[in-house]
Amino acid sequence: MARTGRRPGESGSRGAILAAARESFAEQGYDGATIRRIAGMAGVDPALVHHYFGSKDGLFVAAMELPVDLGTVLPQLLDGGLDGVGERLLRFYLGALELPATRTPMLAVLRSAVRNERAAALLRGFVGREVIGRLAARIDRPEPALRATLVGSQLIGLALARYVIGIEPMASADTETIVRAVSPTLQRYLTGELPGDLLPG
Amino acid sequence: MARTGRRPGESGSRGAILAAARESFAEQGYDGATIRRIAGMAGVDPALVHHYFGSKDGLFVAAMELPVDLGTVLPQLLDGGLDGVGERLLRFYLGALELPATRTPMLAVLRSAVRNERAAALLRGFVGREVIGRLAARIDRPEPALRATLVGSQLIGLALARYVIGIEPMASADTETIVRAVSPTLQRYLTGELPGDLLPG
Repeated sequence: MARTGRRPGESGSRGAILAAARESFAEQGYDGATIRRIAGMAGVDPALVHHYFGSKDGLFVAAMELPVDLGTVLPQLLDGGLDGVGERLLRFYLGALELPATRTPMLAVLRSAVRNERAAALLRGFVGREVIGRLAARIDRPEPALRATLVGSQLIGLALARYVIGIEPMASADTETIVRAVSPTLQRYLTGELPGDLLPG
Repeated sequence: MARTGRRPGESGSRGAILAAARESFAEQGYDGATIRRIAGMAGVDPALVHHYFGSKDGLFVAAMELPVDLGTVLPQLLDGGLDGVGERLLRFYLGALELPATRTPMLAVLRSAVRNERAAALLRGFVGREVIGRLAARIDRPEPALRATLVGSQLIGLALARYVIGIEPMASADTETIVRAVSPTLQRYLTGELPGDLLPG
């Protein structure tokens, strides 16, 4: 059968642009990536990238959004109540890092933020709004935003140590081992009594 | 008084090369940094860099060594016994990150490892040998190496979240707040009962 030559629909082009952007940000970093090259990789006109995402900043923020919708997933993780929320959050996070389709964009964003201040500022805004904000709104404890960032610091460090730097024996430990060792940390950050009772700042 | 024109002694040249290397690795990354350029910044002949450090790899590993000698500091932190070792370790680490003279090389190494697989491999080797190895040798608990890497994951994440990405409110929280919130995590990783009792892997 002859190929029809039909162009991919809007969602196909958008997805192809995002996939190319993630690959490009991961390889060239925020500075090195260009809309022209990303458009070329996705097989679309650069004007279409501008149409969908406005600018390189807009494209970078969109590339941070994982194939899962945090606006849906985070409430689901929290709906089970605060008991065991540390473990549920960690299992979801490690699950996403074990799958190449989600690991690649997650690590690409992290790498970009580490090497470029502009990308760090965009990640800061995104995490503050989409993750810390949503989490903090559901934590009925003093200092919810600081608690959420403490969780973030452990999760970022885990991704770096296990998947980027690859420090042994953590890199090849099985997921269940990591879950059992780290869940209590996240649970304590989210709902435990933090020492000193009232935290300043 | 006329300047004598005396050339800096060995330790002066070596220090100048290391300072230039740290700046260069931080700015250009492992790939972009060259011995020729580093020698130029340090005002020495490239042959002297080769003489002291052998290769770019050797220079990178030397640049990871902080102005403090971990071989001296880690035993001192552990000599007080395992009680409170999490807090002593964290205070030392945050103290080093608060001072530009130690923060700059620490973050330079971390940034290099995130952007370059070769630098990650060098950091992996260095941390495994100099930090995880030394720590694990002193932890009289099951799975000492995994415990040490768990500590490492929280410390790396803290540096990233607080000093590189700058996620609020963690970035501007005072040191004492961080110490009180995170010390129990490190202490539990080092000496606590990890859930499940016997960890596989």
